[in-house]
Amino acid sequence: MSKVGFVTMGESAGGDDVPTVGIGMLGYGFMGKAHSNAYKTLAYMTWPPPLMPQLVSIAGRNEEAVAGAARRYGFDGYVTDWKQIIADDRVGVFDNSGPNNFHAEPTIAAAEAGKHVICEKPLGRTADEAYETWQRVQAAGVKAMCAFNYRFVPAVRLARMIIESGELGEIFHFRGSYLQEWIIDADFPMVWRLDKDVAGSGALGDLGAHVIDLARYLVGEISAVSAHTRTFVKNREGQAVTVDDAVESIVDFENGAVGTIEATRFASGRKNGLTFEINGSKGSLSFDIERLNELQVHYRDSKPGDLAQGFRTVLVSEADHPFWEHWWPQGHMIGWEHTFVHEIHHFLSAIREDTEIGPHGATFEDGYRAAEICDAMLRSAGNGARETLSYRS
Amino acid sequence: MSKVGFVTMGESAGGDDVPTVGIGMLGYGFMGKAHSNAYKTLAYMTWPPPLMPQLVSIAGRNEEAVAGAARRYGFDGYVTDWKQIIADDRVGVFDNSGPNNFHAEPTIAAAEAGKHVICEKPLGRTADEAYETWQRVQAAGVKAMCAFNYRFVPAVRLARMIIESGELGEIFHFRGSYLQEWIIDADFPMVWRLDKDVAGSGALGDLGAHVIDLARYLVGEISAVSAHTRTFVKNREGQAVTVDDAVESIVDFENGAVGTIEATRFASGRKNGLTFEINGSKGSLSFDIERLNELQVHYRDSKPGDLAQGFRTVLVSEADHPFWEHWWPQGHMIGWEHTFVHEIHHFLSAIREDTEIGPHGATFEDGYRAAEICDAMLRSAGNGARETLSYRS
Amino acid sequence: MSKVGFVTMGESAGGDDVPTVGIGMLGYGFMGKAHSNAYKTLAYMTWPPPLMPQLVSIAGRNEEAVAGAARRYGFDGYVTDWKQIIADDRVGVFDNSGPNNFHAEPTIAAAEAGKHVICEKPLGRTADEAYETWQRVQAAGVKAMCAFNYRFVPAVRLARMIIESGELGEIFHFRGSYLQEWIIDADFPMVWRLDKDVAGSGALGDLGAHVIDLARYLVGEISAVSAHTRTFVKNREGQAVTVDDAVESIVDFENGAVGTIEATRFASGRKNGLTFEINGSKGSLSFDIERLNELQVHYRDSKPGDLAQGFRTVLVSEADHPFWEHWWPQGHMIGWEHTFVHEIHHFLSAIREDTEIGPHGATFEDGYRAAEICDAMLRSAGNGARETLSYRS
Amino acid sequence: MSKVGFVTMGESAGGDDVPTVGIGMLGYGFMGKAHSNAYKTLAYMTWPPPLMPQLVSIAGRNEEAVAGAARRYGFDGYVTDWKQIIADDRVGVFDNSGPNNFHAEPTIAAAEAGKHVICEKPLGRTADEAYETWQRVQAAGVKAMCAFNYRFVPAVRLARMIIESGELGEIFHFRGSYLQEWIIDADFPMVWRLDKDVAGSGALGDLGAHVIDLARYLVGEISAVSAHTRTFVKNREGQAVTVDDAVESIVDFENGAVGTIEATRFASGRKNGLTFEINGSKGSLSFDIERLNELQVHYRDSKPGDLAQGFRTVLVSEADHPFWEHWWPQGHMIGWEHTFVHEIHHFLSAIREDTEIGPHGATFEDGYRAAEICDAMLRSAGNGARETLSYRS
Repeated sequence: MSKVGFVTMGESAGGDDVPTVGIGMLGYGFMGKAHSNAYKTLAYMTWPPPLMPQLVSIAGRNEEAVAGAARRYGFDGYVTDWKQIIADDRVGVFDNSGPNNFHAEPTIAAAEAGKHVICEKPLGRTADEAYETWQRVQAAGVKAMCAFNYRFVPAVRLARMIIESGELGEIFHFRGSYLQEWIIDADFPMVWRLDKDVAGSGALGDLGAHVIDLARYLVGEISAVSAHTRTFVKNREGQAVTVDDAVESIVDFENGAVGTIEATRFASGRKNGLTFEINGSKGSLSFDIERLNELQVHYRDSKPGDLAQGFRTVLVSEADHPFWEHWWPQGHMIGWEHTFVHEIHHFLSAIREDTEIGPHGATFEDGYRAAEICDAMLRSAGNGARETLSYRS
Repeated sequence: MSKVGFVTMGESAGGDDVPTVGIGMLGYGFMGKAHSNAYKTLAYMTWPPPLMPQLVSIAGRNEEAVAGAARRYGFDGYVTDWKQIIADDRVGVFDNSGPNNFHAEPTIAAAEAGKHVICEKPLGRTADEAYETWQRVQAAGVKAMCAFNYRFVPAVRLARMIIESGELGEIFHFRGSYLQEWIIDADFPMVWRLDKDVAGSGALGDLGAHVIDLARYLVGEISAVSAHTRTFVKNREGQAVTVDDAVESIVDFENGAVGTIEATRFASGRKNGLTFEINGSKGSLSFDIERLNELQVHYRDSKPGDLAQGFRTVLVSEADHPFWEHWWPQGHMIGWEHTFVHEIHHFLSAIREDTEIGPHGATFEDGYRAAEICDAMLRSAGNGARETLSYRS
Repeated sequence: MSKVGFVTMGESAGGDDVPTVGIGMLGYGFMGKAHSNAYKTLAYMTWPPPLMPQLVSIAGRNEEAVAGAARRYGFDGYVTDWKQIIADDRVGVFDNSGPNNFHAEPTIAAAEAGKHVICEKPLGRTADEAYETWQRVQAAGVKAMCAFNYRFVPAVRLARMIIESGELGEIFHFRGSYLQEWIIDADFPMVWRLDKDVAGSGALGDLGAHVIDLARYLVGEISAVSAHTRTFVKNREGQAVTVDDAVESIVDFENGAVGTIEATRFASGRKNGLTFEINGSKGSLSFDIERLNELQVHYRDSKPGDLAQGFRTVLVSEADHPFWEHWWPQGHMIGWEHTFVHEIHHFLSAIREDTEIGPHGATFEDGYRAAEICDAMLRSAGNGARETLSYRS
Repeated sequence: MSKVGFVTMGESAGGDDVPTVGIGMLGYGFMGKAHSNAYKTLAYMTWPPPLMPQLVSIAGRNEEAVAGAARRYGFDGYVTDWKQIIADDRVGVFDNSGPNNFHAEPTIAAAEAGKHVICEKPLGRTADEAYETWQRVQAAGVKAMCAFNYRFVPAVRLARMIIESGELGEIFHFRGSYLQEWIIDADFPMVWRLDKDVAGSGALGDLGAHVIDLARYLVGEISAVSAHTRTFVKNREGQAVTVDDAVESIVDFENGAVGTIEATRFASGRKNGLTFEINGSKGSLSFDIERLNELQVHYRDSKPGDLAQGFRTVLVSEADHPFWEHWWPQGHMIGWEHTFVHEIHHFLSAIREDTEIGPHGATFEDGYRAAEICDAMLRSAGNGARETLSYRS
């Protein structure tokens, strides 16, 4: 029997001396499916896995639905009260894939019960909520990761490597947007994501937070923002929509770069259009998640007299590309869901090796800072003023 | 002998009863070359031309250079003082292709001398200057056009037609940027475009003004802005750079749409990257001027049950596409310089037929309003506040 | 206990009354990994699965390697002689993911032992071998499928639906190629894929066979071919390369269409470049597997007076797109490996429901016909003559 | 008075000591418009021009039409019998922009009258006709150029430079196609291009000849071909269509490369789709004329450990790019018609400087060899056999 972090581990069923870790999950919807798939896939695709996940228990309020999810994904059992997961000694990792209003309390409780925690973004509906979550979880001393999964796209990690290496030189611009279209129809129903009490914010926290996190991960800390918001459809099914349908913002970075961040659910024809471009003194990068495995890379001076400069369409799928040791020969594309495989692999590795979540994984401090920036954007949208960021520590 | 507008016209050398009009031009640089080419090309490509241009006189301060330009483009003569063009009775059209600090005075003088005027953008270095130019030229009663040539890209005109027809429904978003890279190197010299006294502003007035004009032309009037600016290289050749290297802004439209407008000369790898995307309730458009003859068009519901919805790459080169009656069979691309052919054709047609410059041509009021918006962006960048637009009439 | 086809099935561990089926696999390399992943993934992603696969046994000649694969993917056991799988009563499905020279004999043996068989392409190294395999397996009466997995790309299935619906009208052209680059270096080693005895042919059977199969699936039967082949590097590691490095061919279709099919491992920069374009009297389709979830669709006359015709970039990821009910919200891309999930799901469904493998799955007759076409191409390359196809029945 | 070649030249009206040359043109249709535009444009865009063209006379059978063309483009006069141009002493250059059946006789007559000749492609309707034209014109000792204008696309010239420099290494593949759609409709009329007596062949000579010429220009001489042809619509307006609607071919090059060449007028959605890709041992190139100013360039090893390899989208518009010294700042696209400006500039330079037309301009031998290859393709399509090329000298 070995101990890794706070988790008691047995011998892996798969052999190879991999300790096991029990997973307790909150939520069985979109994110629950994505996380469950990741645990099941990493068990053999990232071989040997850092820890062999055992799907112990899954929590959800609708018993029939959660029971079905448990059967489908192979959890040993299910519960309708997440506190039962906290109390379950078999659980070493608490995976919070629930809706935003269930992020803070269960995550804190899990950490305080000694479980490592991975929590979907946004960490909190407000900066205050995110801050408290961070502080209390940090005090508990467990591993804690905020599930900004797009850091784990191979092309995004490659972008980070290129920037860190200095190959782009000084960064001047970040230009990020996350465009979706799913609520354009005025008769689309009043779902929880449109309710401020549950979601915190709208396109901003759901989509914009991803872009904010990527901006911070790739360019650096944000120092000031200006923002406008819009709610194009103000009532749905007789209820007030209390969040933004779209947010446009300008961001200043501490290192002198300046950029724009936009998020909207009203961009007709854009299905899941997360894009960014970064311009530096020596080169540029461009990315569009609808072409997940491509990164556009431009170097100003690849060699003297080179007449063939231009953005290169890099198919991020070579053996020496990030994460690609787990997958297929070059050119055999992987999908969106594998960002979670990489992410949870990183999380389990940090538990196993007792290493830091950051800088490649988003820490709870990263989650808090993204929330702080979202709050500043909402303030700016309300008062029309540029908001300078100040982060609590 | 016929009279069109304020111009005395003789029989065209080319026959076909096309009256002639004498052209006097200020400036022989980049824009002078582009405008000269346009007059020469439209004379036979847009057949019969609305008026047969006679290149009468060209003005410039460097005598050797302006003499060479006159020979090259076939002007009857040249002058080193623009006032000689104003005084030249053979000149019916004054074409101002000079630098920004030579826009107001010569243009006003020409109009007050009874000449029709076409003036390069920006109309003025400030809203005040643009306003005075507009007012005094309007009082003179001549035809006046601000040379926002990108309205005359076939794909842009098609975009306008699609939006006007209602095929995109209610417009939610405009996302425009104009990205260049030519002054990234810190040792690029201190040219006039970097001097506020001459240019008025930097990337904003030079590039951003184009995007602002397209936003107004395609989406509608802008009602408020927030902006940040940056000057990344603050000194060149020992002189202070007194304009913005980059501007990022958020724009609100009177019709409820919201968008971003960005202009920069620090986007490595982007040569002349004017792009925009427009999202509406029924569809979207996307354009990149580096692919001049393409327009991306998305319709939400082309037909019931259609499984093949998506952005269409429309090669704007069909016989029934805008301006295309002048050119080639489908798929035989035209170049950037022909935007000026279309633009000046429009201008000469308005003189010949005594029709309005607007809505397809940019009027001097359009030129003034773009300047007003630029000024508001600079104010916002300075004070950090959202600036509400109010336009003088 | 229920019986499905020739397989005895128990209660699924996952419940939901899904019978189980035992899987015996030959091969643990690239295709073994891809097929293993598919069985594991379909068990919960295609919910409920048609049959719940039980990974019973995996065969390979290198004991250490096959034992590792068994542990990794969770097979109950492993063997070093594939005949042990044939003899294993727990095995209901024989999955042949082995090299080409192990396709015929084990597959025939498995079928004759009453096991359903799925065999990687090419079905045989020659048309004769493929024919015998087809005939003997057919006589055995089991379900048999040739693993042309690219039929199960969502975009490819959508292409088939569009063509079948008549939306492209009469088909004139097919233009298909499969471009890779992995053996350009003359010092790349002499692997089994370059040995005619093991592989049958080179780029032709490995890559070209996929394009041939897609041509037949999408356009119709091929009636004649002309072909040239090249072996650019004739010796590797002191051994003769006995297969083609590249093949170019012209194909006539029975329905009057004409096209080209090309396959090469010498296309620098093309990683896994399977592309095709189909032109018909009413429209066209274009596909590139490096953008797996995109299909370019052009309709000549979407509506009268439509000025916005062009190829549409269809992101094949909508809820009503083929196979997409198993996956994610729109725009969340899936990867190459899921073609196998769809393929094996189709195979297991055919077993469970006793339905036909064709037309959407490739039958062994399809596998044979592809081999017949490959043989004709090699003959044509050798004798310089157009070869008319005649298929055995 | 100066003499250049066989042409008496006076002082240019534009000054700068540029001698003039009189142009006599046959044809006022599509090509006549394109060539006329080129002479007018090069006079000031390529400054100083090698010779200052004087548009002396234009010939056409329809008097009203040719008179209109003369007025429009500024020819001094027109004739309805091309022999009058041959007899006109003012004419130093005979520009044959007429239909294919008027290529040989007038061109030979002009050359034998001492005029330099530029003739549209195909040089002859058959190899025999092209050969005789070449031989007799060569004997006349004048400058002679076959108007394969696509050699003069800046991106194509850049492609040639890259290949000549050895940067692609050994060439393995050429993959060229020219796809149009304009006669898909069965009720499209019976135009001269569909009549073998006038046109020689169909898509092959009209479109395929361009691809053949580019293949020879970029990769090298063609040594053998196999081809299939199709005539999808066999009757139009009650007349037999006597040419191919489409041709598919495989080509062997003398240097060991192998490729495909395709031409069709039945590719729905492809407007003017001339594309090619070239793969070599060190890199690849890809081009699509619908994106005229872009060249895709891939280098296998830009530098050790480079993780960002991929096809570069080179915007061929830099000051040091081919032909670009005549045009605009980077990113300001030029159009298809300027290929003729570059081409005729090259031709006039060869006259002025008494330099060779080749290798960058297509000689009449190049025109003959393209016709020989077309003939071989038609033979192969007829007899089903690979045809080895043998060229007359």
